[in-house]
Amino acid sequence: MIFDEATANEVVEIINFEKMKGLIPVVVQDILDNQVLMVAFADKEAVIKSLTTGFTHFYSRSRKKIWKKGETSGHTQKIIEVYLDCDSDTIIFKVNQNIAACHTGFRSCFYRKLNEKGVWDITGTKLFEPKNVYEKISE
Amino acid sequence: MIFDEATANEVVEIINFEKMKGLIPVVVQDILDNQVLMVAFADKEAVIKSLTTGFTHFYSRSRKKIWKKGETSGHTQKIIEVYLDCDSDTIIFKVNQNIAACHTGFRSCFYRKLNEKGVWDITGTKLFEPKNVYEKISE
Repeated sequence: MIFDEATANEVVEIINFEKMKGLIPVVVQDILDNQVLMVAFADKEAVIKSLTTGFTHFYSRSRKKIWKKGETSGHTQKIIEVYLDCDSDTIIFKVNQNIAACHTGFRSCFYRKLNEKGVWDITGTKLFEPKNVYEKISE
Repeated sequence: MIFDEATANEVVEIINFEKMKGLIPVVVQDILDNQVLMVAFADKEAVIKSLTTGFTHFYSRSRKKIWKKGETSGHTQKIIEVYLDCDSDTIIFKVNQNIAACHTGFRSCFYRKLNEKGVWDITGTKLFEPKNVYEKISE
């Protein structure tokens, strides 16, 4: 799903970036099974960059800059569908995930599940070894 | 999924509420098909209340208070599974949704989908008429 710059600018006009100082939460879902792969934040520029390139971009609050998911690891997310919520302040990207979304090696960042005793079990499957992919973990 | 107060307090200890002034994003997914129903914010007390009652609670930034999803409409969300992300700053509740999650009458708040021309199409199915459910829309 790729748009030209002018169309992308029109698409984001309805989005309310004001509630959170220019940022909105973005949910990334696997187009194959609707698994939530990650949640990150995006500013207007990151959403526009996502729409004009067809690949997810976010805003890093710690590094204070826009980043392309997979720029280090190659684990990019090709955008297939985009959804907007009722308040126009959260979006969903449904994507084709290359390998895995999480820098820890799991397919999804949500690899811990609460069990009945109140303990966070690791339930995800590890798809790669971070040390083989990142010289320095940066995502 | 219900925990006693002491266990709920232990469960949330790992969650990092500091990044966003006491709040974390919470993704609510339908346990039946993984559809994302809504995204809201919760403080520590709202997460604990969710865990001790078994129903989703959030923090309203506009009303500055904790609210139970469905307290006005009856459209509650019974928590079946809970997931935590790699940074420990976002959680997922997988729920049994009563009727619909969105105050506009749609099953999911994400009832708008971007089409190829860059227009937000309404693709959700309306399950109720808001004016029949709310005297005054408050969620």
